[in-house]
Amino acid sequence: MSGLNIAVVGATGAVGREFIAILQKSKLEVKKLTLFASSASEGKEIAFLGEKIKVQPLRIGAFKGIDLAFFTAGSQISKEWASAAIAENALVIDNSSAFRMDKDIPLVVPEINIETAKKHKGIIANPNCSTIIFLLGIYPIYKKYGVERGAVATYQAVSGAGARAIEELKQQLALTMVKRKIKTEVFPHQIAHNVLAKCGEPAERGNTTEEEKLRNETRKILADENIVISSTCVRVPVFRAHSIAATLELSREFNIDDIRKLIEDTPFLTLEDKLKSDVYPMPINYSNKTDVGVGRIRKAEIFENGLSLWIVGDQLLRGAAYNALRIAEELYG
Amino acid sequence: MSGLNIAVVGATGAVGREFIAILQKSKLEVKKLTLFASSASEGKEIAFLGEKIKVQPLRIGAFKGIDLAFFTAGSQISKEWASAAIAENALVIDNSSAFRMDKDIPLVVPEINIETAKKHKGIIANPNCSTIIFLLGIYPIYKKYGVERGAVATYQAVSGAGARAIEELKQQLALTMVKRKIKTEVFPHQIAHNVLAKCGEPAERGNTTEEEKLRNETRKILADENIVISSTCVRVPVFRAHSIAATLELSREFNIDDIRKLIEDTPFLTLEDKLKSDVYPMPINYSNKTDVGVGRIRKAEIFENGLSLWIVGDQLLRGAAYNALRIAEELYG
Repeated sequence: MSGLNIAVVGATGAVGREFIAILQKSKLEVKKLTLFASSASEGKEIAFLGEKIKVQPLRIGAFKGIDLAFFTAGSQISKEWASAAIAENALVIDNSSAFRMDKDIPLVVPEINIETAKKHKGIIANPNCSTIIFLLGIYPIYKKYGVERGAVATYQAVSGAGARAIEELKQQLALTMVKRKIKTEVFPHQIAHNVLAKCGEPAERGNTTEEEKLRNETRKILADENIVISSTCVRVPVFRAHSIAATLELSREFNIDDIRKLIEDTPFLTLEDKLKSDVYPMPINYSNKTDVGVGRIRKAEIFENGLSLWIVGDQLLRGAAYNALRIAEELYG
Repeated sequence: MSGLNIAVVGATGAVGREFIAILQKSKLEVKKLTLFASSASEGKEIAFLGEKIKVQPLRIGAFKGIDLAFFTAGSQISKEWASAAIAENALVIDNSSAFRMDKDIPLVVPEINIETAKKHKGIIANPNCSTIIFLLGIYPIYKKYGVERGAVATYQAVSGAGARAIEELKQQLALTMVKRKIKTEVFPHQIAHNVLAKCGEPAERGNTTEEEKLRNETRKILADENIVISSTCVRVPVFRAHSIAATLELSREFNIDDIRKLIEDTPFLTLEDKLKSDVYPMPINYSNKTDVGVGRIRKAEIFENGLSLWIVGDQLLRGAAYNALRIAEELYG
């Protein structure tokens, strides 16, 4: 193939912009890049490989000639437009939650289950950001020792709620510094100097949608209906990397040095685990990185084979845009 | 008794100031208040009931005539000076970790084990702030259903690291807004827009001191050597209330409505648990409150009788100064 025609739906959003930025450095040969966004963004230009590309609104026939369409404009847009893209022979990689739990649609973290991507029927779903980061952090451990269950607490950056959420935190920080009244538009409450124990919307089991995604997508991606994840997903006033405290029950006995070695030997993970020297992963250090950081590795007494660890990754990049790009690279590279 | 002579050691610190503020509204009759701080604070004046009281450095004989000395100047000062205070017949309520795990010294949350305070031999230890807030949040559940074990993740305010830590966060927020270089003095890394997976210092089991306190102090306060708490204690850029995500295994079957009713019926707890209306406890709302907020109550699949909940409380007040004052009120009120 002499290059791909690629489209991004949601090009002006936080994940869309990230995808366009990393696509420039990708080994994929891009013949043409087409950018779609809502009519509110019409006329905006986005730089790509020295060119300025105008953003267009979606329309019937928009996907003609497109090989690969990356959707990141929310579930509603994906539900409305993905079938049009498929009908026009584009492969859809969808970053929304619209199709993730559909049995016929692969849900893919390339480092874990790329083989499922190859069986796609036109749509491949990109998993939830916290789930990607969590699963990458535990994956070598899962493979070698098995994981029976886990209690997870997240420290999620505002970027997970989109570009407007990043702006909202910035504005609230500026206004609270001078004791001015703040506005809340994206989040229901002030996020500056605060934490919100709700990511997403109310869902099953008293959980939020985010907590249900961690539970359900973990099972689907690992193809393991027995693993049980109970989580509390929390928004913190951090800009763009998510952190996760996980306490796991492994299926077999283990020793901590071997866990450290497993992490160290895994290409997409960075081991940062020297408590005495204050070395542990931090969100400010993982912003704009594709590696996931793992630290605070220790036995957890509450389980017979209990393990606690701390996982940090860039939500926009590793938890969204880079995962999608890696899927495309695996399929077309 | 016609009023108490009370001393505060560490009067200019974050918890010391809080204690002095709430002592003014207490039912304790204060005959005289004496304020001690390091020589760096010498000459400073602190308002108390319309008077201005000069801060003094500690000296031999400082505790003569003092009935009750509240120590909140760190472990080192407590170790050096508590015995002098006892020798001069003062009762010491110590907010440091110096004596908490000493078998002969009661470790007291008044709402849980005030009877142990009455057996003191001169010192009563005030527990760790996260432990107080966590235990108050789970106590009515523990009493009725028992708690076998729990996985805990904290979202701790900077106030837990003292008055200078609060200033450091403020300065870092101001400097990062204008893209200036920040200083790190109290915390080893930037805390603005970041989270730090280390509270306290390295300790046993790969845990930090804070994580060990949650484990050990919980056992001592509940007088329950079997309860197992595995925690990850994390500093977040919040000013003064701690939040806690807890996933517990109860000893018996329960239903969620009964748990909600237990929380609602407990005088020192506030139930905030309406996810659909975005009602859950938040640190900005619990700053300057003595109640502990509980919400996000739901079954946790990872245990047979699993329960997840979210607990928030003011670290300086409920987690330190107010707990100490309540002990004094119970003993002298």
